[in-house]
Amino acid sequence: MHDSNTPPRAPTPLGDVSSDEIRAALHRAADIAADYLVTAGERRVTPAIAPGDVRRQLPPSPPQHPEPLEQILADYRRIIEPNMTHWNHPGFFAYFPSTGSGPGVVGETLAATLNNNAMLWRTGPAATELEELTTDWLRQMIDLPASFKGHINDTASIGSLLSLAAARHRVDGLDIRSKGMAGRSDLPALTLYCSEQAHSSIDKAAIVLGFGTSNLRRIPTDDAFRMRPEALQEAIRADRAEGRLPVAVVATAGTTSTTSVDPVRAVTEICRREKLWLHLDAAYAGCAAICPEFRALMEGMGDADSIVLNPHKWLFTPVDCSVLFVRDPQTLRSAFSLVPDYLRTDEPGVTNLMDYGIQLGRRFRSLKLWIVMRAFGVERLQANIRSHCSMAREFESWIRAEPGFEVVAPVPFSVVCFRATPPGSPDEQDRFNERLLSDANQAGDFFISQTKLRGRVVLRLAIGNVRTTREHVAAAWKRIRECASRARR
Amino acid sequence: MHDSNTPPRAPTPLGDVSSDEIRAALHRAADIAADYLVTAGERRVTPAIAPGDVRRQLPPSPPQHPEPLEQILADYRRIIEPNMTHWNHPGFFAYFPSTGSGPGVVGETLAATLNNNAMLWRTGPAATELEELTTDWLRQMIDLPASFKGHINDTASIGSLLSLAAARHRVDGLDIRSKGMAGRSDLPALTLYCSEQAHSSIDKAAIVLGFGTSNLRRIPTDDAFRMRPEALQEAIRADRAEGRLPVAVVATAGTTSTTSVDPVRAVTEICRREKLWLHLDAAYAGCAAICPEFRALMEGMGDADSIVLNPHKWLFTPVDCSVLFVRDPQTLRSAFSLVPDYLRTDEPGVTNLMDYGIQLGRRFRSLKLWIVMRAFGVERLQANIRSHCSMAREFESWIRAEPGFEVVAPVPFSVVCFRATPPGSPDEQDRFNERLLSDANQAGDFFISQTKLRGRVVLRLAIGNVRTTREHVAAAWKRIRECASRARR
Repeated sequence: MHDSNTPPRAPTPLGDVSSDEIRAALHRAADIAADYLVTAGERRVTPAIAPGDVRRQLPPSPPQHPEPLEQILADYRRIIEPNMTHWNHPGFFAYFPSTGSGPGVVGETLAATLNNNAMLWRTGPAATELEELTTDWLRQMIDLPASFKGHINDTASIGSLLSLAAARHRVDGLDIRSKGMAGRSDLPALTLYCSEQAHSSIDKAAIVLGFGTSNLRRIPTDDAFRMRPEALQEAIRADRAEGRLPVAVVATAGTTSTTSVDPVRAVTEICRREKLWLHLDAAYAGCAAICPEFRALMEGMGDADSIVLNPHKWLFTPVDCSVLFVRDPQTLRSAFSLVPDYLRTDEPGVTNLMDYGIQLGRRFRSLKLWIVMRAFGVERLQANIRSHCSMAREFESWIRAEPGFEVVAPVPFSVVCFRATPPGSPDEQDRFNERLLSDANQAGDFFISQTKLRGRVVLRLAIGNVRTTREHVAAAWKRIRECASRARR
Repeated sequence: MHDSNTPPRAPTPLGDVSSDEIRAALHRAADIAADYLVTAGERRVTPAIAPGDVRRQLPPSPPQHPEPLEQILADYRRIIEPNMTHWNHPGFFAYFPSTGSGPGVVGETLAATLNNNAMLWRTGPAATELEELTTDWLRQMIDLPASFKGHINDTASIGSLLSLAAARHRVDGLDIRSKGMAGRSDLPALTLYCSEQAHSSIDKAAIVLGFGTSNLRRIPTDDAFRMRPEALQEAIRADRAEGRLPVAVVATAGTTSTTSVDPVRAVTEICRREKLWLHLDAAYAGCAAICPEFRALMEGMGDADSIVLNPHKWLFTPVDCSVLFVRDPQTLRSAFSLVPDYLRTDEPGVTNLMDYGIQLGRRFRSLKLWIVMRAFGVERLQANIRSHCSMAREFESWIRAEPGFEVVAPVPFSVVCFRATPPGSPDEQDRFNERLLSDANQAGDFFISQTKLRGRVVLRLAIGNVRTTREHVAAAWKRIRECASRARR
């Protein structure tokens, strides 16, 4: 594979690999992709390998001379593809599934071909306008007010960071953009609020933006893992009483552990009264908001200042594609816009996407989203989401009907949190569930993950793959029951 | 195109688009891609359209029902492709060219197919190990010490932000990660340093991290636009004298306007003496460091604490692919690592890529880099870079030989800064050059950009496209001369 013994050709060719070789490799890749999407479900979801097994098969130093694409693709099939964890496997029930559909792959091929950087309208007119259009389509699909403008980022981690940076920027008279936060006697400690179930990306934003994790208040939740509004109100009051300055609240629609939805309406009212920025992390459940019946669970969403929603999570768009909606895009723009001399342009009134975030480089992510939206249409996207939620409710009903198991959180969407409840102490039960997780995942035909709720180990089955059917879910449940009954003996 | 009049089929199909339709569309996309790469040079680099022209051709609301991929691809060819600015055009001489090679497109197709999120080793074993391998190959290619570890991000904007966050975290005893920066009487103002020619992403990092733009010292440069070490030393001294705490210096290897290289060795020595973190922004010129003769211009690079280098800029890898090298990866890890319950794993000693940055979601960017490195081999990558630099030197020699033009900065790599010098005041000369830029770009067969140096308008021709030949550069020069001579009449 590593042809360091091949004599160098002279002279070394310039330019790209030959167009014939590229065309052949693109068609070969098309077949590899099409075959993979059909056969993903026949593989182990997680490969049975140990750390280092892949690297060991590859040369430690880069090749000096060009190698044929055919040979590289053969190595891909032999070394890379079998040693992946297959997020596109219909038995991938861990974390939040992140499904890439076929139309999304087509979109990424074309985006890579164009290799566009739409930092300015001028450097990517169609990419800039398609981003504005597809995010507006999405806005309509979740029935947000027309004042919201969408901005595509790589991840919700960045979307939430941008939103909280805008919130910090909006605080009157502090001019943090210019003066910074350190060494200022006019600046009290600045505080943020989210529920104890909020995603770790909010902690990372608190670190990066200089709020500090100790100034991020983790508000307790109710018995359905939803932020308690009166506890939020009390935390804000206590901070103000002690001279700190509350800046923003992050509510979650679809928490990572249980998909609980914070009481958006009540939180909104507190934010309005307290003049705080409200960011809604709807990375997962915001996708379900394209169905009116699920949107109803997030009532009040349209009153948030910003909302993040990931089409790469549950709208069948390959990673990465995360949409940040902001009600007042000028706040985001005034937090981030900087136009150096080498990026000045003369088109008045156009959107230059670089002005709305950290990253100057912006690849053409809206292309795959546009192709997916059109290839599925709203109705087929909705049908898939409804089917996933319906399978989750059926799985929940099986757990509820089974002695020795319990469902430990409500199932508003497509994630079920459950555990075995064998006789024994809570610690013994935890160990039993950890072993059950490991045993159940052993065969590799599906992959579930775990979390902790109220300090206890909980198993978590998340449905979201475009290729998952009722049979995949039923097979997983059958195995889980068998493993539990073997472990009880 | 928007088939809202088609009667809905019943029931709506679930799952993905049919595998036959996907396979056909992937092959169609392969041909569109292969054709595009061959014909990119026959198009206008920038389309002759006005803002809104694209959006106007597309329906304002999302389609309810699925549309055939064939039809979507036909719309792509009709509405999207012709209305892009073609960064893959051999006449793209603006900003920094960012070339996507054919092998890179193959890599992106496969990455989208796998749709992997390598946040943990367990969720993407081959992706995690290939990222470690390819970045180590790159480390060897630029001859960095083995202690440096590479981490792939989307952009250098994020890489530099992560580096400066690590620098802030490393400052002894401040515990900014937990306590934050605001409202602390124990925390002086924190300062950063870069040259007046450094990239705007450093300002954005200063904003995001809460340093504030007024605490980013823009150090003056010498007559070759390189940071003046004695001015850096003096700025640090003055800040310390006034009670501020210097944290980090950003040196640039290949500034955006002129590709000047700060005196890395001298800056390194100051940083070591002052115990400051040194980040090297080598997003562009770091790619040229794969050639020993260009690496010599960045002497001292191996003593930096971190280095950012963008294979998507000048190693023929489609956007996005930016590598952050850090000498002590534990600093980055301790700045960012957080492991919530739902992401705990039991593999000891593995690399979990999520621990080294902000973004939890990490797509499989090393795949395209691996394919590009192998398809080109080190020697063909070097040959392309040498050819680009040689074409730039030839263009420079044409300017120098031409009365009424001047070269306004040294040409260490592949960018030439020049201007026409007609009789008249400096402001009149500026207006002349602005008009010359606009006239020269008018025909659309190439695209150059501008910047300002010492307050004056400067034209900028940047070579970096894998398909650019001497003929493309000569044609651009011919047109620029013609436009200048027409404007002088």
